[in-house]
Amino acid sequence: MNFVRNAWYVAALPEELHDGVLGRTILGDPIVLFRTPEGKASALFGLCPHRFAALAMGTIKDGNLQCPYHGLAFDGTGHCVLNPHGNGRRPAALDVRAYPIVERDDLIWIWPGDAALANPDDIPDFSCRTDPERRTVGGYGHVACDYRLLVDNLMDLGHAQYVHRANAASDAFDQLEREVIVRENEIEALMTIPGGTPSVLMAKFLRNTNQPVDLWNDIRWNKVSAMLNFIAVAPHGTPKEESINSRGTHILTPETETSCHYFFGSSRNFGIDDPAMDQVLRDWQRQALVNEDKGIVEGIEAHREVIRRYGLKSAMLACDEAAVRVSREIDRLTQLESA
Amino acid sequence: MNFVRNAWYVAALPEELHDGVLGRTILGDPIVLFRTPEGKASALFGLCPHRFAALAMGTIKDGNLQCPYHGLAFDGTGHCVLNPHGNGRRPAALDVRAYPIVERDDLIWIWPGDAALANPDDIPDFSCRTDPERRTVGGYGHVACDYRLLVDNLMDLGHAQYVHRANAASDAFDQLEREVIVRENEIEALMTIPGGTPSVLMAKFLRNTNQPVDLWNDIRWNKVSAMLNFIAVAPHGTPKEESINSRGTHILTPETETSCHYFFGSSRNFGIDDPAMDQVLRDWQRQALVNEDKGIVEGIEAHREVIRRYGLKSAMLACDEAAVRVSREIDRLTQLESA
Amino acid sequence: MNFVRNAWYVAALPEELHDGVLGRTILGDPIVLFRTPEGKASALFGLCPHRFAALAMGTIKDGNLQCPYHGLAFDGTGHCVLNPHGNGRRPAALDVRAYPIVERDDLIWIWPGDAALANPDDIPDFSCRTDPERRTVGGYGHVACDYRLLVDNLMDLGHAQYVHRANAASDAFDQLEREVIVRENEIEALMTIPGGTPSVLMAKFLRNTNQPVDLWNDIRWNKVSAMLNFIAVAPHGTPKEESINSRGTHILTPETETSCHYFFGSSRNFGIDDPAMDQVLRDWQRQALVNEDKGIVEGIEAHREVIRRYGLKSAMLACDEAAVRVSREIDRLTQLESA
Repeated sequence: MNFVRNAWYVAALPEELHDGVLGRTILGDPIVLFRTPEGKASALFGLCPHRFAALAMGTIKDGNLQCPYHGLAFDGTGHCVLNPHGNGRRPAALDVRAYPIVERDDLIWIWPGDAALANPDDIPDFSCRTDPERRTVGGYGHVACDYRLLVDNLMDLGHAQYVHRANAASDAFDQLEREVIVRENEIEALMTIPGGTPSVLMAKFLRNTNQPVDLWNDIRWNKVSAMLNFIAVAPHGTPKEESINSRGTHILTPETETSCHYFFGSSRNFGIDDPAMDQVLRDWQRQALVNEDKGIVEGIEAHREVIRRYGLKSAMLACDEAAVRVSREIDRLTQLESA
Repeated sequence: MNFVRNAWYVAALPEELHDGVLGRTILGDPIVLFRTPEGKASALFGLCPHRFAALAMGTIKDGNLQCPYHGLAFDGTGHCVLNPHGNGRRPAALDVRAYPIVERDDLIWIWPGDAALANPDDIPDFSCRTDPERRTVGGYGHVACDYRLLVDNLMDLGHAQYVHRANAASDAFDQLEREVIVRENEIEALMTIPGGTPSVLMAKFLRNTNQPVDLWNDIRWNKVSAMLNFIAVAPHGTPKEESINSRGTHILTPETETSCHYFFGSSRNFGIDDPAMDQVLRDWQRQALVNEDKGIVEGIEAHREVIRRYGLKSAMLACDEAAVRVSREIDRLTQLESA
Repeated sequence: MNFVRNAWYVAALPEELHDGVLGRTILGDPIVLFRTPEGKASALFGLCPHRFAALAMGTIKDGNLQCPYHGLAFDGTGHCVLNPHGNGRRPAALDVRAYPIVERDDLIWIWPGDAALANPDDIPDFSCRTDPERRTVGGYGHVACDYRLLVDNLMDLGHAQYVHRANAASDAFDQLEREVIVRENEIEALMTIPGGTPSVLMAKFLRNTNQPVDLWNDIRWNKVSAMLNFIAVAPHGTPKEESINSRGTHILTPETETSCHYFFGSSRNFGIDDPAMDQVLRDWQRQALVNEDKGIVEGIEAHREVIRRYGLKSAMLACDEAAVRVSREIDRLTQLESA
């Protein structure tokens, strides 16, 4: 499988572990996640070394993860701590692989590659998610496409004009100004749409919807597929810093070569105590990400075979600069590991 | 994929385009069909040249087909007429392939092969469908098998005695007379069953069901998979020309190597203003084609792997002469193109 | 396909043939089963030699099996006895392969290999199923895994302690004594758990549940995948022969390389006229075999690709002796035929 393994990915949202044991395939590996009695999230290879039963079907027993099939139990480091059979010997072959895990910014990060290379300092910054000046709502979605199709999608947020037309199109779209900034390990695409009428979605955030607004819609990419969006709106001519805005989590984790996990969120700096605003954003996330974007990219994935058969190459547009730069960087990282 | 591409196939029924945009896979190609403002049916390759979004998910904008993803728009010839991004340039790489289309006999014909070879004169005659002396009812069905299994099915209508036993079996089946006529680009199988009791279906067409009848059940094949049936019944001894009869549309279009589209119809010369007779024929089509034949041929398709594994060869019967001739002709046409 | 073909397998339960014609894939072959007018079960290759229609969609006509497509009919030996077409000739190519069949112990056994090698004396003994001193209840299940995963499951019944924990776990599990007996063509694993509290299931069989009990749980394997279980319970210290017990049918028949048929039953020597006891056992079979075991082994099957990709080898435990011996014997038999 053709993945970048030496990188941090999000394995789960902390809330997904509340009920105990979570199974999830990541970069083609079956992974089982659970919390130790000390509350530390752990991630183990998800098949029991004995008969390959799915440990995700197991239960927590005395703080360890117990295999559902013959009762072997493993601690948070993957060490087999119980063999209920025969003389109870536990040779090293009964231990399972543990993956480096870091819980930060209300996200559980995993390193699927060589553990010796895992450095938590390399985890990109999503601290907006726990910023007390902001309110975050979000969730998890499953998308049946190569994660790279969703990276392409996110690195040109101009698609909102069409895919999310009903809620997010702007009558000033032809005034759009773009900028792409390339930093070390980071690529950012900035979009400004000055002087438009508020869109249906933006109108829900504004008190006064009768004046023209400036709209900013930026997205930052960090290796391999963690994106942070900055969407802001303000009366025309207001400085960007004085806008009301949301920092959006858009983090993808490959499941297989043709499917991925999508961890999304919106961390807004306005109406942070207003449950109605929570609902507006949850509705938008479900509509835009789960319905609209998912339909488009799964439609592309469904044609992978015909694209390959005819050797089709994308005809790039001016709006693709950031997506192309990111795509080349992912190519480079992938080839680096397969070399 | 192993198809005859240089041939006319039916892409759709005109009624399927009434609501706008129709996506359909034909000979493995994703195709999008729509009508231009002048009412002309158009067929384009169904993936946007930019990011391969499915154009079938698009909408009509100013008479052109607009991609749902980033708003590129295409006219009926596949020419890109709108690029909303950057300086709006539209290099030739943004145009999509258009397929030759002819609307005739209430059918939309497509030529999936080399457009330079497309000659509308080669479209087989289905003018019975719009003959004012006849009444046509019909529809569309999807069948999960190689279209050639349905060609085999249709080229020996003797299968009706067994597959459609409840409605169409004849007590005079052992009096069956067969003839096969081979013309240029055309093969016809004639069946006569003289002096039988009317079947359940035929009894619904006849005023007097107490006399023995002669039954004709002929089928004409034209390349590659367009079949016209002639089913007629009359009191025993009546000339064929004086029968009440129906000309039946049975046109197949390969979707993939293991599935096909089935456009069917019945154009009758009796009871043409009688809605009850419409219903009798719609019921028969649903029962015979959609239920009974589909079950048989999908059952064969489901065993393709075991047939291949054991190298099974069909043991041919006397009734297979026409089917074998057609099958050899399709083989020849297929090999001609793959050579 | 990698099966042991020269062996007896169960094709069906007699009750499955009551309604006429049964289609079932066995070792990758489509098979059709029916009874001749004399009541003898017959098994034929399931595709008509003419056009490969599924004979399982056929009907019985004059005691023969008639193809649903063009009416060829076959007797119980596979001989074509009717060709309704042309001059009605029936060359040998119209005959279909018949498989050796033996109906015994309320099971229909089939020999998918070389008919010349089929010896009914090799069928393992399941006479407990029709023993008048016992009452048998059972059924059929379909499991989406390689049958060998279920053989592994059954050859170590210690898995009940975990997989069937709610009903069958014993508080004396750590007193477990094991013995493995290897005979010619037969391997048996014996388990004794002395002096435990009755499990939830066992308590339903006992009048006095307040005293400690001894539990026996043995399983006998015969080639290739026919297993007979002996589960017995008695007050602590009672001889095994005086126990109340059930002989359990656990017979697997490969369907494909990744799915199998499971014929199960329980033949008990207690409460044989008590319908409530029938229900207890049916509930247990559905819960333990259909729900719990099926979930575990299908979960393993679902990870076949990742197991192969990483070249994972099972880490064997003390409890696996019988399973490993059986597995090696099936390996040997498989290689014998593929050589």
